Amino acid sequence: MSILKMKANRIAVLTDFGTQDAYVGLMKIVIDRIKPGAPVLDLTHEIPRGDIHWGAFTLMTSLRYFPEGTVVLAVIDPGVGSKRKGLCIQAGPFWLVGPDNGLFSYVLRDYPAQAIYSLENPGYFLERVSPTFHGRDIFAPVSAHLLNGVSPSDLGPALTEIVKLEWPEVKTQAHQMQGEVLFHDHFGNLITNISREDMEACRNLKIGPHENLNCSLQINGHVLTEISSTYSQSQAGQLLALWGSSDFLEIAVNQGNAKNFLKAGKGTQILLKP
Amino acid sequence: MSILKMKANRIAVLTDFGTQDAYVGLMKIVIDRIKPGAPVLDLTHEIPRGDIHWGAFTLMTSLRYFPEGTVVLAVIDPGVGSKRKGLCIQAGPFWLVGPDNGLFSYVLRDYPAQAIYSLENPGYFLERVSPTFHGRDIFAPVSAHLLNGVSPSDLGPALTEIVKLEWPEVKTQAHQMQGEVLFHDHFGNLITNISREDMEACRNLKIGPHENLNCSLQINGHVLTEISSTYSQSQAGQLLALWGSSDFLEIAVNQGNAKNFLKAGKGTQILLKP
Amino acid sequence: MSILKMKANRIAVLTDFGTQDAYVGLMKIVIDRIKPGAPVLDLTHEIPRGDIHWGAFTLMTSLRYFPEGTVVLAVIDPGVGSKRKGLCIQAGPFWLVGPDNGLFSYVLRDYPAQAIYSLENPGYFLERVSPTFHGRDIFAPVSAHLLNGVSPSDLGPALTEIVKLEWPEVKTQAHQMQGEVLFHDHFGNLITNISREDMEACRNLKIGPHENLNCSLQINGHVLTEISSTYSQSQAGQLLALWGSSDFLEIAVNQGNAKNFLKAGKGTQILLKP
Repeated sequence: MSILKMKANRIAVLTDFGTQDAYVGLMKIVIDRIKPGAPVLDLTHEIPRGDIHWGAFTLMTSLRYFPEGTVVLAVIDPGVGSKRKGLCIQAGPFWLVGPDNGLFSYVLRDYPAQAIYSLENPGYFLERVSPTFHGRDIFAPVSAHLLNGVSPSDLGPALTEIVKLEWPEVKTQAHQMQGEVLFHDHFGNLITNISREDMEACRNLKIGPHENLNCSLQINGHVLTEISSTYSQSQAGQLLALWGSSDFLEIAVNQGNAKNFLKAGKGTQILLKP
Repeated sequence: MSILKMKANRIAVLTDFGTQDAYVGLMKIVIDRIKPGAPVLDLTHEIPRGDIHWGAFTLMTSLRYFPEGTVVLAVIDPGVGSKRKGLCIQAGPFWLVGPDNGLFSYVLRDYPAQAIYSLENPGYFLERVSPTFHGRDIFAPVSAHLLNGVSPSDLGPALTEIVKLEWPEVKTQAHQMQGEVLFHDHFGNLITNISREDMEACRNLKIGPHENLNCSLQINGHVLTEISSTYSQSQAGQLLALWGSSDFLEIAVNQGNAKNFLKAGKGTQILLKP
Repeated sequence: MSILKMKANRIAVLTDFGTQDAYVGLMKIVIDRIKPGAPVLDLTHEIPRGDIHWGAFTLMTSLRYFPEGTVVLAVIDPGVGSKRKGLCIQAGPFWLVGPDNGLFSYVLRDYPAQAIYSLENPGYFLERVSPTFHGRDIFAPVSAHLLNGVSPSDLGPALTEIVKLEWPEVKTQAHQMQGEVLFHDHFGNLITNISREDMEACRNLKIGPHENLNCSLQINGHVLTEISSTYSQSQAGQLLALWGSSDFLEIAVNQGNAKNFLKAGKGTQILLKP
């Protein structure tokens, strides 16, 4: 179904605001005032402060589960109040609303933008716009107005260029590949940028006269030579690698915390050798 | 529209219960049992334990965004089970439900009470009332019954006196004014009690024969002489003052944490000198 | 009303996933895709990682507040991806959905199982099932399908045996009884396994020729000889025991933190002596 015929029907929210303050609550209350009873689903509000890459990755791995017609309201916005634009992007069956700082870059790899609008029509903002909280004063009201049937093209002029983040590609070198830890989760599992395709490519790297079918993984001095299928397949406390629920390679410790165990985190290098 | 004609239509909740336990979940489940499908919006549940001032300030700066007909269910209740009363206050287009300990004091500056009732009718409580959890057993059910159309005057006798917190006024002294930090947010920004009116008053303080138009701000040995309009206007790591999203003066560090940087927090003094 | 005639009408969720990641958000989005507008209530997502006993206790003390027709979706699942079964249990007016690891053991003491089904029909799962996230791929969709009217018997074969946790009974010894701390809450209150019946039994323990009516309580070198009715009945900072909102004996410090004060926690012994 073309998005032009589809109705926006729910809002999913991701921010780095935490839940200590009323910031997220205020965004939802603003939505509920403009569109009473609007279905609002929290993705998470605990993206590390200002970490646009982390937010972009979380959006990318989540969107495949969203129903058609979801408005994705994402606010990680260290540049709030500056000249950075606000966006409404039509992408696949979704509307993406948030700051123009690359936050939607990875999502757009899976769902290319069909149209992009710059949020400039104050008729869809709150009456007073604070220079420090566009989540409440611009992005939440715009999302609610989309649910009320407002057309994205009414929100402001069309754009062709937006800020893009580079995808952190696995690097292929002479006799190895180099990946990295993208982030860790609540359990201390390390989520990497290594996909099944990367692992396949590694297996195809040839060294000398023989072809290696398997691939070893090195991280902070530890070597893993197989991929587990579940956390509990190993002994408690044992380091393991497995395909995580986002379909990227994950480093974990069964019933433990890989982040602490390896003293690893965002940016830690991972070597894959055939 | 008179509140007498208005219907209570949603509940917004603020507590200091945290989200670690099922306490907040139980309040919502109790509401949903009495008024199935009741719209319930979380303001925050992470007000520091027992900090009635912090809760009162958060309510005050939030209520202007609430739709008419909101029941404000607020539970910061260190005196639970003692003789402190439970309240339902009609104030502007809102109903305020919670303990009589001053929690609504600052809200009532903006929306004066039209009627106050003491929660004494057990017909609107859960059958068994625990002396340690009135949030679940009294305040949540009363809020849900309001959504069902119960009249506040049925909840108990009218009151004329309730507990009041003093507003932490900025103090005007001979040649300066003295404000204070009220609290910090998730980002370590320091929210003060200094309003635009206070700043204007400071500018009008006269010292000697000349009139100063501007005003410097001192906090823990640091001096700020201008008000930024956005966080990102300064260098990363730089201390700045700006009008926060609550319309009070905020001390922040661009991409940093002012609370840690200044070793400041609730109660830290701020001097304004013309 | 027989559960056979009742319709599943809402979902209450408990996990140990935390809220840092999108895990809980994804479960809710999956539910909303299968049953748009499904009412979903969070009990808590901060059960300590993998602590099935803690989760089981929280469910037990919460279920009495749930409306009839609630689907209880509980995921504390260290064995995810292993051979442990997934369950749908009809118990009283509830449906219990989650892993077969004992998580529902304590609930079933109050609401005996009427029927138990093993989740084996992939027609009610997501199309792709990750071995590491059955919450999103199996338990959430099954719960949503129950709301859509799917019969539990369609989910898989009936079971008669499931994993059971032993209830941590208070132990009666020669001249004393021995209880323990089960867990602590957000406020540092220590929740014990001592019920009113246990306390009554203690009072009936006879030592020598006289019958003691009262009972002293010892924990980490501190002795308490009375049961307070509220936190605020004592001086600030004073240790006290009272009947908590779950109807188990609770050790608390008025306006303080009993966990830190006593350096106590899960498993700390408590002696009751008449």
